[in-house]
Amino acid sequence: MLHDAGSWDAEFNSVVAAIRTRLLKLAGVTQASGWETVLLQGSGTFGVEAVFQTCVPSQGKVIVLANGAYGERIVQMLKHARIAHAVLRSAEDTPPAADALEKALATDKAVTHVALVHCETTTGILNPLEEIGRVARKHHKIFVVDAMSSFGTLPIDLESSNIDFLISSANKCIEGVPGFCFVLCRRALLEGCEGYARSLSLDLLAQLKAFDKNGQFRYTPPTHAILAFEQALKELEQEGGPVAREKRYRQNHQTLLAGMDSLGFRSYLPPPVQSCIITAFHTPTDPHFSFEVFYRKLSERGFIIYPGKLTQVDTFRIGNIGRIFPSDMDQLVHAIRKTLLEMGCLTPLPPAAH
Amino acid sequence: MLHDAGSWDAEFNSVVAAIRTRLLKLAGVTQASGWETVLLQGSGTFGVEAVFQTCVPSQGKVIVLANGAYGERIVQMLKHARIAHAVLRSAEDTPPAADALEKALATDKAVTHVALVHCETTTGILNPLEEIGRVARKHHKIFVVDAMSSFGTLPIDLESSNIDFLISSANKCIEGVPGFCFVLCRRALLEGCEGYARSLSLDLLAQLKAFDKNGQFRYTPPTHAILAFEQALKELEQEGGPVAREKRYRQNHQTLLAGMDSLGFRSYLPPPVQSCIITAFHTPTDPHFSFEVFYRKLSERGFIIYPGKLTQVDTFRIGNIGRIFPSDMDQLVHAIRKTLLEMGCLTPLPPAAH
Repeated sequence: MLHDAGSWDAEFNSVVAAIRTRLLKLAGVTQASGWETVLLQGSGTFGVEAVFQTCVPSQGKVIVLANGAYGERIVQMLKHARIAHAVLRSAEDTPPAADALEKALATDKAVTHVALVHCETTTGILNPLEEIGRVARKHHKIFVVDAMSSFGTLPIDLESSNIDFLISSANKCIEGVPGFCFVLCRRALLEGCEGYARSLSLDLLAQLKAFDKNGQFRYTPPTHAILAFEQALKELEQEGGPVAREKRYRQNHQTLLAGMDSLGFRSYLPPPVQSCIITAFHTPTDPHFSFEVFYRKLSERGFIIYPGKLTQVDTFRIGNIGRIFPSDMDQLVHAIRKTLLEMGCLTPLPPAAH
Repeated sequence: MLHDAGSWDAEFNSVVAAIRTRLLKLAGVTQASGWETVLLQGSGTFGVEAVFQTCVPSQGKVIVLANGAYGERIVQMLKHARIAHAVLRSAEDTPPAADALEKALATDKAVTHVALVHCETTTGILNPLEEIGRVARKHHKIFVVDAMSSFGTLPIDLESSNIDFLISSANKCIEGVPGFCFVLCRRALLEGCEGYARSLSLDLLAQLKAFDKNGQFRYTPPTHAILAFEQALKELEQEGGPVAREKRYRQNHQTLLAGMDSLGFRSYLPPPVQSCIITAFHTPTDPHFSFEVFYRKLSERGFIIYPGKLTQVDTFRIGNIGRIFPSDMDQLVHAIRKTLLEMGCLTPLPPAAH
């Protein structure tokens, strides 16, 4: 983070090349089997939008499976880009059903692309990649997966899930710093998108061609974030790879759940669809409870939590990922207990079974 | 650079607010007089494109004054976004002429926006803001200025130059690290662009509304680059502001020019249009000279220079900006002399007058 790399320099380009190779390896795919990875400046949203802006032809149509804010964000992107689309919504605590997609694709022949958010961090729900991918492939649709908060930790088999484009970000499970995102894709599919791009900055194919040509970004990259990301990838490997990291996140999640349960909080999702990435809790109905005060007091104690993002139910969220360990979760629960006492609302809710 | 800020946290939001205030002050404008600044993730190009993607209506037309690669990049952006446009080209060593714009605007009534690159770093040429702005205003056109490599150092009077949108980047004259860019604009004009945006990520108006609402970026910001930028703005102030910084850059430029002249290099631009930002030199015709070898040997000595970007003439470029001083330029010239000796091509060119 303290080294100024020249973005045109061989030293920096070799880091970019190493990152691209490591990402393919992490995804369990190879260039030889037709896969590529393209890095792009901006947040993860820029990468998701870049896929649609670059890869959907003017006559294309996207069906979005939405059960949270990030699915709805894809809908917003398509509206902005004037790309035809349909939305298959399910409740925020319910994964999209493969048979509903089956029915939709059988009816609407104009659809060319299927879009799914893998781990919808609105709630932390895990959506069924393989089932949805199977239906997409059966109908010869291109399958686009927003794997922002899952890639690098939760198991994703690109081939068996029939994924064509997968987007993720530097600063989630790989634990880099924010500044760029990346897209894993089937090279031939991206190469087939010549002339579709509606944005120059978000033109993924042009970005790939620049990497092909001289290993460089087209436009100034966030050099420090990229150097940090190479280190983050090494640390992921040192930890034991995605399996070990998932184990740690799961322990974080379980420690959090047990602690919050002891304080009377109820998690929003039923356990079978709950990922270990982020956990949404019902906001206590105790009149002494105020989320703003709760957030501020926890922040002052060194713990940053997230507001809720649900449309119907009042929740707040706690992330389990990053350089944190079960002992941090114990400390967080301790800080929450203290905060509740200060707010005069312990126990916030009577202990309740799911 | 070593502090992980929470992008939703009050601590971080206060830095974002401070940066936005400082940028307006640096530009010599105020919110009270109708100005705003919007920060955007990505490189400077993302910011330039965001202005066009957000602010040109579907029936709009942009005239681009182009005399280098960055002017041509605006043309590429407009092509990608399917925005109607015309291009008024001048030679790469010649500033665009106000009377040519006058004539073009008198003829083509469909034009709604005029686009100009202030300092075209293809060559380092300084283009005439006030003259072009005057013609744009006379014809009631919106004036968009790419001030990537000039803002924060070279004098720019937004009001007297009739600028409506000005784009610059964290990592040029303000000497931050790369990761985001910013747009200075007349608030009422941006607010009038509701519904035009063709991209969600690049939707400047939505970005402004998010800052208005809760002081936050819509999507994950490059937190480290933003914290570093606040420090960079403080250091600019400590140095004595843009006037002092321009003086240092000018000294860098003059030291470089004198040293390179003593080695027989010829600068590309005539002095009256040459900025102090970056200097293009003719590539020596000596058969022993190879830019690749020259670049590599200088890089090994700790000096990173730039390849040329001109279409017709073979040049290379040396930047005068960043945390560098005339003594660094002396050392660079010394390193160039050593490198030329090693390559067997001293003196590269007979000393020549402009």
